[in-house]
Amino acid sequence: MAPLPSKLAYVPFVSVENMMRLVHHIGIEKVLTDLADQIEADFRRWPLFDKTPRVASHSDVGVIELMPTSDGETYGFKYVNGHPKNMAEGLQTVTAFGLLADVNSGYPKLLSEMTLLTALRTAATSAMAARHLAPKGARTMAMIGNGAQSEFQCLAFKAVCGIDSVRLYDIDPAATERCARNLAGSGLTVVKCRSSQEAIEGAQIITTCTADKQYATILTDNMVGSGVHINAIGGDCPGKTELHRDILLRSRIFVEYPPQTRIEGEIQQLDPDHAVTELWQVIAGDVAGRADDRQITLFDSVGFAIEDFSALRYVAQAIAGTPFFTRLDMIADPDDPRDLFGMFQRAADSVAA
Amino acid sequence: MAPLPSKLAYVPFVSVENMMRLVHHIGIEKVLTDLADQIEADFRRWPLFDKTPRVASHSDVGVIELMPTSDGETYGFKYVNGHPKNMAEGLQTVTAFGLLADVNSGYPKLLSEMTLLTALRTAATSAMAARHLAPKGARTMAMIGNGAQSEFQCLAFKAVCGIDSVRLYDIDPAATERCARNLAGSGLTVVKCRSSQEAIEGAQIITTCTADKQYATILTDNMVGSGVHINAIGGDCPGKTELHRDILLRSRIFVEYPPQTRIEGEIQQLDPDHAVTELWQVIAGDVAGRADDRQITLFDSVGFAIEDFSALRYVAQAIAGTPFFTRLDMIADPDDPRDLFGMFQRAADSVAA
Repeated sequence: MAPLPSKLAYVPFVSVENMMRLVHHIGIEKVLTDLADQIEADFRRWPLFDKTPRVASHSDVGVIELMPTSDGETYGFKYVNGHPKNMAEGLQTVTAFGLLADVNSGYPKLLSEMTLLTALRTAATSAMAARHLAPKGARTMAMIGNGAQSEFQCLAFKAVCGIDSVRLYDIDPAATERCARNLAGSGLTVVKCRSSQEAIEGAQIITTCTADKQYATILTDNMVGSGVHINAIGGDCPGKTELHRDILLRSRIFVEYPPQTRIEGEIQQLDPDHAVTELWQVIAGDVAGRADDRQITLFDSVGFAIEDFSALRYVAQAIAGTPFFTRLDMIADPDDPRDLFGMFQRAADSVAA
Repeated sequence: MAPLPSKLAYVPFVSVENMMRLVHHIGIEKVLTDLADQIEADFRRWPLFDKTPRVASHSDVGVIELMPTSDGETYGFKYVNGHPKNMAEGLQTVTAFGLLADVNSGYPKLLSEMTLLTALRTAATSAMAARHLAPKGARTMAMIGNGAQSEFQCLAFKAVCGIDSVRLYDIDPAATERCARNLAGSGLTVVKCRSSQEAIEGAQIITTCTADKQYATILTDNMVGSGVHINAIGGDCPGKTELHRDILLRSRIFVEYPPQTRIEGEIQQLDPDHAVTELWQVIAGDVAGRADDRQITLFDSVGFAIEDFSALRYVAQAIAGTPFFTRLDMIADPDDPRDLFGMFQRAADSVAA
């Protein structure tokens, strides 16, 4: 057997199975609430972060992106793909993993699956934003688009915002059936609807989360009354939007990071200088959120690197002292750092297969 | 026990230990030769690649970088840090890992340590460039800077270019001693020198690989005669150079990717429009390399994403059918891709700790 690598050479790794264990161990609603709090705390110190639009590699069928950020002490990035055509081939549209590293040494300190974690952080971010923007006393949410993200959204709004009823709609009735089945026993009242119009009846919050990579109109202007909060998460790349432009013109629009949202979000339909409010400024108390009961607020969410950073930091804290991670021998760490070759050479006998 | 993830959910992972096993199994000189050939083949199809300068996150003490590229079929990126002060703290200056993914699905297909692999690919790239640029019949190399990269450089020039003698110099004599000791038995004639001047006596190839993060002058103009090839690999970030500007002015300069090298390489000392030749054009046969026996050729190497891509692809091929990798459960892959939540929910019983 080879000599054991030094402690520094090991990077804690959270597999998909261990992420599921961890979330079941803590309880999904508590995880969503904790994540919302962690993301909110990081949004409050937004100016501290090193921010850059994601680095995208586009092909005809999808995109692969790297989303890095740093708060000066910890560096994090996420790898994520987006391939709408994957679904038809039995693959995930989105898969992801992420890493945290120590800014002072550059050494990685966490590697984690992020397919599940992205679903959790996206839902937690939505609910955290709604906590600041939705009408007081909101109890009913319309959930339009009942794909892989939908149940996480419903549970986050229950846990974080006190939603007790969800109204589901998808162009594929089987998706609505599946979402309703998965939410049975959650404590939510679940209503299956046959149209977007029906789904938004009586809802104070409308979440849209559909997956077409094309301009779509999930909601038209005449469908949306005053005094609602719209949580638009499906419009998240160039050419992919969900809302009619006229709804945007009637709404007060909140975004994560304008340089990214103007390219990827619903507001790609608007003039490049159309006024938007950065969500972090509302959370920091610099700018007011919802003005009155009649305003339409719109969170045009595309997902930003800081949310992944928050989620990874939460996981790093949550796994401490648990069995929900393994250690990867991912970093060469010779006794004498100048003697990488010596480490390799001395391993010749011990690693002989 | 949890149900096993599907085959698609597993990502082959090459740990540091398995990388050492793999390289010992194949033989380091063959690995270096194979890598040089693979990198050369990818340089030949250079225009095909999606190229972007690395994405850097700088701090007072170092840098963390992501280096992505794609050939349209395969996507790759490397995570790498550079922290010169790490050495004094007993840590590696550079650590790295990398990933390959399928452009068509976005699914990762290899995760690998790259601290050792970067040392190998850097040496292979240097030797591959020298194969095109060094004077014919070169047998002696000066190796200035005897740190973690030095032995790999010496072996690559032996295996790829037929170098049979190396002349070592470092400001720290212990580093030279260590390098000489590690190369004993390699078949190279090793000469320990007490100055740069002494090291370059009779050498047709001069490799500089020092680590200070500041403008340094390892070689002054009067030291360098005609008819040599200089392989400058230590000047690789803003403010970090090794050669006196006058040497650059006397040399024909070859670079990897000008937009990156002008920021990071020796040529940051020159006017932004100073003529340089892209190495890939020499390899593709579009531009002549060395003109005559008296020319000074300089490969101003900073390391480029395509070299990491080539190295990762080599590893992906090399591990097939070997025991030198494990499989990581890194990608969630539910039976029904729309039912991520259902996968999570059904795992409740089976993953209970």
